Amino acid sequence: MNVTLRGRTKHFRTVAFDAAKNSVLLIEQRWLPHEFKIVATGNFRETARAITDMVVRGAGAIGATAAYGLAQGALAFRGGDLKKFSAHVDQVYQTLAAARPTAVDPVNAMNDVRRNMAAGETVAEQQSLALAAAEEFANEDVRHCAAIGQHGAKLIRNGMRILTHCNAGWLAFVDIGTATAPLYAAQAQGKKFHVFCDETRPRSQGATLTAWELAQQKIFHQIIADNAAGHLMQRGEIDLVIVGSDRVLARTGEATNKIGTYTKAVLAARHGIPFYVAIPCSTIDWKLKRGLDIPIEDRHESEVLGAWGVTKSGKREYIHVANPTSGARNPGFDVTPPELITGIITPAGIFKPAGIWKRKKELGYVG
Amino acid sequence: MNVTLRGRTKHFRTVAFDAAKNSVLLIEQRWLPHEFKIVATGNFRETARAITDMVVRGAGAIGATAAYGLAQGALAFRGGDLKKFSAHVDQVYQTLAAARPTAVDPVNAMNDVRRNMAAGETVAEQQSLALAAAEEFANEDVRHCAAIGQHGAKLIRNGMRILTHCNAGWLAFVDIGTATAPLYAAQAQGKKFHVFCDETRPRSQGATLTAWELAQQKIFHQIIADNAAGHLMQRGEIDLVIVGSDRVLARTGEATNKIGTYTKAVLAARHGIPFYVAIPCSTIDWKLKRGLDIPIEDRHESEVLGAWGVTKSGKREYIHVANPTSGARNPGFDVTPPELITGIITPAGIFKPAGIWKRKKELGYVG
Repeated sequence: MNVTLRGRTKHFRTVAFDAAKNSVLLIEQRWLPHEFKIVATGNFRETARAITDMVVRGAGAIGATAAYGLAQGALAFRGGDLKKFSAHVDQVYQTLAAARPTAVDPVNAMNDVRRNMAAGETVAEQQSLALAAAEEFANEDVRHCAAIGQHGAKLIRNGMRILTHCNAGWLAFVDIGTATAPLYAAQAQGKKFHVFCDETRPRSQGATLTAWELAQQKIFHQIIADNAAGHLMQRGEIDLVIVGSDRVLARTGEATNKIGTYTKAVLAARHGIPFYVAIPCSTIDWKLKRGLDIPIEDRHESEVLGAWGVTKSGKREYIHVANPTSGARNPGFDVTPPELITGIITPAGIFKPAGIWKRKKELGYVG
Repeated sequence: MNVTLRGRTKHFRTVAFDAAKNSVLLIEQRWLPHEFKIVATGNFRETARAITDMVVRGAGAIGATAAYGLAQGALAFRGGDLKKFSAHVDQVYQTLAAARPTAVDPVNAMNDVRRNMAAGETVAEQQSLALAAAEEFANEDVRHCAAIGQHGAKLIRNGMRILTHCNAGWLAFVDIGTATAPLYAAQAQGKKFHVFCDETRPRSQGATLTAWELAQQKIFHQIIADNAAGHLMQRGEIDLVIVGSDRVLARTGEATNKIGTYTKAVLAARHGIPFYVAIPCSTIDWKLKRGLDIPIEDRHESEVLGAWGVTKSGKREYIHVANPTSGARNPGFDVTPPELITGIITPAGIFKPAGIWKRKKELGYVG
């Protein structure tokens, strides 16, 4: 998407590759919205560290980063010995796979790159195929998000007030994003609307990342405390809810997403407000049979007990907000049942939760 | 309630009076939980400023502060001229009434003090009656909160997990509090339970004030992000919700409270979890006919865009968390309809929302 820095507008992807320098280019997300900076990793180990340290986060974005990281590692190999090359690529793969061990996207993305490399008969050919496959992985992520935007934009009418939660924007993917894709597409169609960004405590991705994205694209938005959406719905001030998801169960239609999503779905249902979940195909879980089996990560209590931000003097600081002798409970995700989901916006169209399984061919089901 | 400072435990009221020094004693609430400090106001103007500057906040607490402030001002008068005394008291009254112009408690409390003073025939008698009436106002607040505790404690069984929102604790009253009163009473009865404190963004009164109170009373509690209660309810980890209220409409049973309360009521209803509102009689609005007419204060956006806390070096700082070019919407309260309220815990017993009007005599209805 476009970013305007000191009056100049330029297009950036969240993850890109500089072939001349054999370097992965990442938007440094830990400093947003207070500073916009591109990090260039010098080798595959630095790329792995960028994933671990959350320089880059978001399902599609870390998938593409790992794919590029594997190509980067492969391209750094000198010589023509295919056996040695293969052993080297194995090591690169293991390093990148271990960077965020619970995530599935990096592994899927790297498997894809390796499958493509196998067609090469020389080291040079395999190196070249690796980079092409990584680029294709990133491009497919962009195409999927663009398709989500085209389908989702049909839901947006002039004057609508749309709520979103957390960040399923272009920063979480290579470009465009999922929950934000319909907003960008509707804007391109000339539609005028108003977005409420849930702050999304405890990590405030709505107030920081989504608000920053929308500000860059000049979409009118207001941040609200997570407590406020219920009141706004009650007073008739929200018309539509669009969120992302970390995992949609094809067999049940349940959607896992950032903590607080379920609450918004319950409120939307009470007020008869349509509630949509936007996802690429890679977010569909074809195997799991019930939402209760989705592991809910209990995160560190410091996230709830304080906040990160910038002081008046411009220094980035963590402050402890809560009573210092109190502890916290910090579940990171929740599960929204299908009866609260109006529709799931996918690259192949908008379906009822129960429709995902029926459309499995179109949605890239792999046994 | 008891506060333990450097290993020594002592009883404090939120608001008290030092007759020897003609001084109102207030717990400085803006520095809690990071520092516990008693402020002594030297004269009625300082007392008014303490209300304006939110050294003291909460309905019952500012009522008692104004009552003591009026007595303080009256006691400072020198001489025996009743006319001059009366003009002086008028001025004190106006100054204190203007300290928080939208609040009704200070005015009600001071009217009470003046009614009692009128029986005195000399300046000295009226001064003495003023202080006695202020003390009685504070004592009645304590008795009401204690009665709420006795009624509410019957709802609490061993092993329960109880959710509360914002701070309707002893810091918002003279002592004991309303939503917290059943917890303290149940603890005194030897019951064991677990409290979840909603953080209560944007001002975080749950994470700061309620958590501090519960820690002082050694009640086991955990702070949660406002986003987390829905998930915990869904997984069967919350058994009971008790909140306070700023205004309960006797004619409809609707309850105004801190933003986010309505959301918790909707979630509790979905999960069949009892949802109680605890209030003293002074919180009942006998006149208003519909919740939509309750003015909802839109507060400053800086509350949503950042947070107050303590840095690693121990400095109290405001940090800006959100994207710097984004704005916020910040409604301060919401209204919970009676069908979502299991019962209202009052000093006279626990009633259904529709029962308030029927019990008007017991609940201090004044035409």
